[in-house]
Amino acid sequence: MSKPDVVVDAETSGSQVLVPEPLLKERIFAALRAAGADEPSAEASTRALLHASRLGIDSHGARLAVHYGKALRGGRVNARPRLTTTRTGSAAAVIDADDGLGHLASYRAMELACSLARESGVGATGVRRSSHFGAAGAYALAAAEAGFIGICVTNADSIVALHDGAAPFHGTNPIAAAAPVSAGRPWLLDMATSSVPLNRVHLYATTGRPLPYGVAADAAGRVTAEPALAHMLLPLGGEIFGFKGAGLAGLVTILSAVLTGAVPDPAMLPMAGTDDFSTPRNVGHFCLALRIDAFVAREAYEAAMGQYLAALRASRAQEQRQVLAPGDREWAVEEQRLRSGIPVDQETARLLSLVT
Amino acid sequence: MSKPDVVVDAETSGSQVLVPEPLLKERIFAALRAAGADEPSAEASTRALLHASRLGIDSHGARLAVHYGKALRGGRVNARPRLTTTRTGSAAAVIDADDGLGHLASYRAMELACSLARESGVGATGVRRSSHFGAAGAYALAAAEAGFIGICVTNADSIVALHDGAAPFHGTNPIAAAAPVSAGRPWLLDMATSSVPLNRVHLYATTGRPLPYGVAADAAGRVTAEPALAHMLLPLGGEIFGFKGAGLAGLVTILSAVLTGAVPDPAMLPMAGTDDFSTPRNVGHFCLALRIDAFVAREAYEAAMGQYLAALRASRAQEQRQVLAPGDREWAVEEQRLRSGIPVDQETARLLSLVT
Repeated sequence: MSKPDVVVDAETSGSQVLVPEPLLKERIFAALRAAGADEPSAEASTRALLHASRLGIDSHGARLAVHYGKALRGGRVNARPRLTTTRTGSAAAVIDADDGLGHLASYRAMELACSLARESGVGATGVRRSSHFGAAGAYALAAAEAGFIGICVTNADSIVALHDGAAPFHGTNPIAAAAPVSAGRPWLLDMATSSVPLNRVHLYATTGRPLPYGVAADAAGRVTAEPALAHMLLPLGGEIFGFKGAGLAGLVTILSAVLTGAVPDPAMLPMAGTDDFSTPRNVGHFCLALRIDAFVAREAYEAAMGQYLAALRASRAQEQRQVLAPGDREWAVEEQRLRSGIPVDQETARLLSLVT
Repeated sequence: MSKPDVVVDAETSGSQVLVPEPLLKERIFAALRAAGADEPSAEASTRALLHASRLGIDSHGARLAVHYGKALRGGRVNARPRLTTTRTGSAAAVIDADDGLGHLASYRAMELACSLARESGVGATGVRRSSHFGAAGAYALAAAEAGFIGICVTNADSIVALHDGAAPFHGTNPIAAAAPVSAGRPWLLDMATSSVPLNRVHLYATTGRPLPYGVAADAAGRVTAEPALAHMLLPLGGEIFGFKGAGLAGLVTILSAVLTGAVPDPAMLPMAGTDDFSTPRNVGHFCLALRIDAFVAREAYEAAMGQYLAALRASRAQEQRQVLAPGDREWAVEEQRLRSGIPVDQETARLLSLVT
């Protein structure tokens, strides 16, 4: 039985329900508060999870509220962190996240980067002693919504092999960037530096389809198309050009961890698939904000961005395909979900008291 | 007949000669000066070309001296530019390159970014009204050699299709990054956001080998493995994951052109394959420098970077493969070339008066 407004998603044969955004928001916030999170932490995490759930990044949406609850209850994540911010230059700062939820530290880090950029043209904030922060795009987007170009990266636990490697090394280490668009939603890129995230492999396993070639390897490090055998991911670029994905993942590790004092990916405790929900993981993030009129007149930027995006969307597409700008698909999904509800799997819905 | 010290490269059946680095440097500088370049321009370009030639990035090395000579003589590139630098914030600046050789403006831009970072923790410089700048890694490396983490990107003329696209749109838009390593040469990434550069396709054509799948498309936008039919490149990630390469290329265009007032890739005049060597192209670049101790103690960074690289190089490799850090291959090539000479094709060698 579901609560008022929650409807079964017929398209998924009942495996999901559709939840109005305000209700989902209320329940995620309540669940995090019930797990002990203080108000600022629960607010920031709810905001980040809703970002992902609205935009269709379901791996980083509502379902993570359950995971974070476990990490809060186990003590891995500090429910009432005292963040320490140190400004180290007119354009630079570091935040010690005190092992709190990564979302709070990261929204603060990007806000601070924007405020430094407002003053100095550019601002960068490194974050150490943090935890999983959800979808990196949430923070890049926060910068774009404040009028800045934002870039945000995080390292993560070891699951992606190096190029020519046969063992997990880097995390999926996403790169997110966003840029303001005057006559529409921001340009928004949020991409793992592996070809796919691990849960995509699980999805292939569930549906019995073979993996695209070159995205995963078996326990011996041999490339495999069999999802059940996948033991590690391969970097973006696949077997031949994976040195590019691995190089980008390395750049993310250097900025997020080596430069901040966080733990590099190969030494990081796993996020999932472990019984240890009590030891903090010291994840690192890095946020950069650029003030547009420190480089070009705002009107010139807006005109150029508009022309660039118009040219991009008018570029000839392959038959039966459509050329999209980064974010186009996500903004369409958001519009649809705000109208029809956000799909939540039955288990998460039950744990969030959306169904009984 | 070759000059003293220039020897025929037996391994290439005589199609290349091996030139000692100091001699090649002298001849490139002389050729650029002879084409009218003033001393600072010729020095910067020579430095950038030698960077590429030493490290094995031959597409961006000595052979470009001939191309730049043509652009200088034709007036496309201003041989005696007056660069205008405007500091717009304690961490930001812009350079108008006055249509000069891109190398001069870019070394200046990265030096300035480092000097801003020295003062403010972070520094960024946008460059407009520039031209082709060679290998992006040259400028990222300059930052790392000065003790900073450096990132440098440039846009370029339209040759890479969008994801699901069937027409050239972005340039190969490289991303370069470098980070200091206390006990060795810097970590150095320099990658196009397409899978391969166009001249790699030409190389496949020459040797009659099929292209790796998903790197190029024919004039109709259909993916092709036939190098002779290749009309455009495809973004990194290939047919399925090309939205990532296209997204990164877009980020490069936004930073280099939309944010600087340079010309976006689709509107840029072509570098080669044109008779127009008189119209300036208004290429844009973007340089970022991070002062390490604005984020973490220098000793902590050095220890963490050393441990990270040691772990990376010790990571298990696939059979008969070797795991390398970005730059490892290039530094090995440099060592070998400084010993045995730099390979230069016969035509370039003749035009640089290295053979008669």
